[in-house]
Amino acid sequence: MMQSDVIEADLNHITITDPFLGEYQRLIRDVVIPYQWEALNDNIPDAEPSHALANYRIAAGLEPGEFYGMVFQDSDVTKWLEAVAWSLSQKPDAWLEQTADEVIELLAQAQCEDGYLNTWYTVKEPGLRWTNVAECHEMYCAGHLFEAAVAFFNATGKRRLLEIACRFADHIDTMFGPNEGQLRGYPGHPEIELALMRLYEVTLEPRYQALARFFLEARGQQPYYYDIEFEKRGGSWHWDNWGDAWMVKDKAYTHAHKPLAEQSEAVGHAVRSVYLMTGLAHVARMTQDEEKRQTCLRIWNNLVQRRMYITGGIGSQGIGEAFTSDYDLPNDTAYAESCASIGLMMFARRMLEMEGDAHYADVMERAFYNTVLGGMALDGKHFFYVNPLETHPKSIPHNHIYDHIKPVRQRWFGCACCPPNIARTLVTIGHYIFTPRPDALFINFYAGTQAQFTVSGGDLKLTISGNYPWDERVDITFTHPQPVEHTLALRLPAWCDNPQILINGEAAVGKRRKGYLHLHRQWQQGDCITLLLPMTIRRVYANPLVRHGAGKVAIQRGPLVYCLEEADNGTQLHNLSLPEKSVFREIEGTGVLKGKVLLQTEGKRVATPSDDQPLYHFDRQQTVIEKQTLTFIPWFSWANRGEGEMRIWIQEA
Amino acid sequence: MMQSDVIEADLNHITITDPFLGEYQRLIRDVVIPYQWEALNDNIPDAEPSHALANYRIAAGLEPGEFYGMVFQDSDVTKWLEAVAWSLSQKPDAWLEQTADEVIELLAQAQCEDGYLNTWYTVKEPGLRWTNVAECHEMYCAGHLFEAAVAFFNATGKRRLLEIACRFADHIDTMFGPNEGQLRGYPGHPEIELALMRLYEVTLEPRYQALARFFLEARGQQPYYYDIEFEKRGGSWHWDNWGDAWMVKDKAYTHAHKPLAEQSEAVGHAVRSVYLMTGLAHVARMTQDEEKRQTCLRIWNNLVQRRMYITGGIGSQGIGEAFTSDYDLPNDTAYAESCASIGLMMFARRMLEMEGDAHYADVMERAFYNTVLGGMALDGKHFFYVNPLETHPKSIPHNHIYDHIKPVRQRWFGCACCPPNIARTLVTIGHYIFTPRPDALFINFYAGTQAQFTVSGGDLKLTISGNYPWDERVDITFTHPQPVEHTLALRLPAWCDNPQILINGEAAVGKRRKGYLHLHRQWQQGDCITLLLPMTIRRVYANPLVRHGAGKVAIQRGPLVYCLEEADNGTQLHNLSLPEKSVFREIEGTGVLKGKVLLQTEGKRVATPSDDQPLYHFDRQQTVIEKQTLTFIPWFSWANRGEGEMRIWIQEA
Repeated sequence: MMQSDVIEADLNHITITDPFLGEYQRLIRDVVIPYQWEALNDNIPDAEPSHALANYRIAAGLEPGEFYGMVFQDSDVTKWLEAVAWSLSQKPDAWLEQTADEVIELLAQAQCEDGYLNTWYTVKEPGLRWTNVAECHEMYCAGHLFEAAVAFFNATGKRRLLEIACRFADHIDTMFGPNEGQLRGYPGHPEIELALMRLYEVTLEPRYQALARFFLEARGQQPYYYDIEFEKRGGSWHWDNWGDAWMVKDKAYTHAHKPLAEQSEAVGHAVRSVYLMTGLAHVARMTQDEEKRQTCLRIWNNLVQRRMYITGGIGSQGIGEAFTSDYDLPNDTAYAESCASIGLMMFARRMLEMEGDAHYADVMERAFYNTVLGGMALDGKHFFYVNPLETHPKSIPHNHIYDHIKPVRQRWFGCACCPPNIARTLVTIGHYIFTPRPDALFINFYAGTQAQFTVSGGDLKLTISGNYPWDERVDITFTHPQPVEHTLALRLPAWCDNPQILINGEAAVGKRRKGYLHLHRQWQQGDCITLLLPMTIRRVYANPLVRHGAGKVAIQRGPLVYCLEEADNGTQLHNLSLPEKSVFREIEGTGVLKGKVLLQTEGKRVATPSDDQPLYHFDRQQTVIEKQTLTFIPWFSWANRGEGEMRIWIQEA
Repeated sequence: MMQSDVIEADLNHITITDPFLGEYQRLIRDVVIPYQWEALNDNIPDAEPSHALANYRIAAGLEPGEFYGMVFQDSDVTKWLEAVAWSLSQKPDAWLEQTADEVIELLAQAQCEDGYLNTWYTVKEPGLRWTNVAECHEMYCAGHLFEAAVAFFNATGKRRLLEIACRFADHIDTMFGPNEGQLRGYPGHPEIELALMRLYEVTLEPRYQALARFFLEARGQQPYYYDIEFEKRGGSWHWDNWGDAWMVKDKAYTHAHKPLAEQSEAVGHAVRSVYLMTGLAHVARMTQDEEKRQTCLRIWNNLVQRRMYITGGIGSQGIGEAFTSDYDLPNDTAYAESCASIGLMMFARRMLEMEGDAHYADVMERAFYNTVLGGMALDGKHFFYVNPLETHPKSIPHNHIYDHIKPVRQRWFGCACCPPNIARTLVTIGHYIFTPRPDALFINFYAGTQAQFTVSGGDLKLTISGNYPWDERVDITFTHPQPVEHTLALRLPAWCDNPQILINGEAAVGKRRKGYLHLHRQWQQGDCITLLLPMTIRRVYANPLVRHGAGKVAIQRGPLVYCLEEADNGTQLHNLSLPEKSVFREIEGTGVLKGKVLLQTEGKRVATPSDDQPLYHFDRQQTVIEKQTLTFIPWFSWANRGEGEMRIWIQEA
């Protein structure tokens, strides 16, 4: 266990040298974090006000005023702080660190004597703390505070925010628990469970792990806590939630309809589901709790075997931002929230840490290189909440089934969860590339990095280079001066049929286990592992139980899912089809797509009819088929060239 | 014009001898009308209360109590009266007539001194009459009263209800109009326009036609009347309409965003749209108003060329029960309300009266034999509001895009518009079969009937026999004793490639004009026209601009659209495909489908995968194709054998 814990700290100081992800990290530093700072300070013209910092100032007594914003507005500040912390780990920035320190001081001033910290309740409803954990996000905000505190401590060594977090965690630990006089509640929006485990990793305070366990085990027990507190407060519900206390009543919406040990399906609000499972998997591993592990496996399998889009998107419907049912994966009305795929990455990472199985890395990579990257525009200034797999912009404004769909990325959102979440994921990507486990250092995907790990045999220092995921060749070179004996586990991606791995030019000999090649060796300075992972262009087929994939095919190259866009292929993408035998060629993108591999092949198009062709006709001969070159782009880069149709699944004929 | 007017009256006394439609008429008489009577009297256990007759009794001062129900609850009673009237035309029933007379007396007692009659306002908000015509359905209810009055007068010769209607119409005529002191309003839910024209046909009171014209011409003029009355009443909106007065603001929802003369698209609430157009087409014909005719043609063409399902269903979305945009015709989330297709039949009939073009009859027949018949179960006791073209019942309860979809017909509805509307359409079907025009007596489709028409040359008496639309042969025999010279126009259906028409065994010679064969002759007793309309099984293709039809085919035989149902074909209908060359055979239905022609052919099925097959795979070889016999049933008869999947458009491969 200690080996793993030590290495965990090393993950905070990985340098991304990858030209592709490096550019994203630069955008986070130079564009996203400064932009979000301006947003938090309400300095963006035409954007919805945030008021998030003002709320803290009011709570701290520094200025008069009223609370404004969502019940989880505080978390916008702490998510920003977390992104700043990770960014400082990557690249010091004195102004940014000082600005963050000032924000942290503000949080300290806004914190109550007893450790409580939530500006909604402090400013607006001071008497109502902890009366509505089902709907009111106090624990969700606490969780993001804890995550920021851990990140800031790791990045800077400064303990100020960590102390604030621990005081709040201690307060919550006195309020909630199984003992006489404590509340038996658990949060409507999970997050605190995973955050308490992060806090535990840094502080080694066993109460935090125990509290996470309590929240997980109390969940869904009868009588339902949501009902108990609902009655206690006289049957009122939170003003943000229209309707008749539905969030209290629909307990499956928050995985609280029965104890987790009795659950087998990914249900309800997709983000809540995967955040919850992330915490559960973490606790399962740390406490070696087989029952919790089995719950994780059941819900994971249901999720990725039946409720996940090819893009790693999850949540098939807009209303409720929620899962629907097995194999119900409509492409044009998908929700597939960016944050849900981030949560899926987190869940996958925890499962990978527990299981050491490349299957989890396959899903993690799928979510990252498709939905998460796709959530942000190539300019770093525009974001998708919702990531459909097919759009027909002309129809979107007129049919309410598309109410949640935007045909292009938007600048900022009233509910600002996705942009800072994407930011913090991109700057912590090293945590997903490497998984230190007791049995080996796992390398999950091969983005260019420089990293150093303290392992039992000494210091392992390595550089990954190449141009992943565009080029097939990846080199891992070792630069530590002293030889180190250790096991490296290299993922053999599921999308790659014929991977070759060489050590110093000779075929590597190792054990292939759960999708990883385990290489045990005394690694010397100058050793070089070369991976050849042919980026074959693959046709992907959906399970026949997915009715929205019937008769259709998708294209994938490496981990990247491709799509057709109107900019390259004209309108009416539904009339394009891909012959079974068409051969693809690779071309380089231009303009905003420069550096990206595009794909071309010969396809077919049902010709556009004349204006007076009737809606329905009996004559197949009227259908004129034309040849057309099809150009596919990586789906994550869609909608960077204005509004237009887009489609991943196309007819194969 | 007089020829047409005289014949119109004859339409009320057509006897349906058709075994197929005859059974539907029997169901209306024996099941639907009695059931609706019990519902109106709140005698149906487990059904939502109607309270509609109670509202009239309270308004009449006969009993104490409060109004209960929708703002258009009154129309449930008048629609029932209308169905009763038409039923009495078909088959006298002393008890039913007496019951109707008593209801009519109740209406008389509920009518105010000044002619006003609406129980919502009389009982609940007496001071607020005519303050919210945008939302509050006073004119809609008036229209249904007028239609019932005309029907009852035609059926029985009794004037009592007609007098009530005229008193109310006169009151409205004083309140609304272009003169000083009159309101310039027009109804949010059109209906009164078409009803005033019916009232005019019977009374020949020119004020009624002029008032219909006023409503049509005032519509959409600026400043908008909806805004004027909205401000006048202090910005309040009707409690039934959640949200922020959206029905006032979204003027396109009611075709009131601009004057009708400037409109070109079928927009907003589908029922409102076609009801409005029905009135407009009637006025256009009667006043020979070319501008109005051109508006009808533009909106008609947009509707049937771009916004109509193959089933004659209209309205592509549930929210708003509304049109969406051109070629946006999703099958599984369609609204396609039964009442909207009834309205489409009404609009088509008025266009046909004006234009004498079989195109309108084609659409009328499509809507009738598919969506309207499909709206009622074969037992006469269950009804669809919403008529999707594809259902996957397992997914319906879990995805909110299906909130409006029911997988099987329901007994009755809180908003009870469709069942009585279907009832009155079925009992007046003679009005759709025959169209008397100055140039000819048009026969539009060939359901078995006995009818008598007074034409300029004398009395034309004819019998249509056969088994339409199942069998190809139809005989029209003449039974009047005196020879009559007249033109008959026989529709040559668009779905029929090679119609043959014989007179007394010899090929008929006539002029083919706009899809009708015009036969001018002195018709003798014993003359017989034989039509051979081959009921070929046709493959139907959607216009390539309809993305939900891409790669798919539908099956039609005669006017009937067919579908696959789970009861015959198993689950996962999306995995079935129809080879291009498959040959069909006809079989007779059994059980509840007895008497119906079913179709069978050899098709293919993508085999159901094993439970552990992943969601996505790279190997086309994993797709196992099996042979399967496909059984198609007429779509109108779906969901009569319990809950199951259904699909009209299937893969052609």
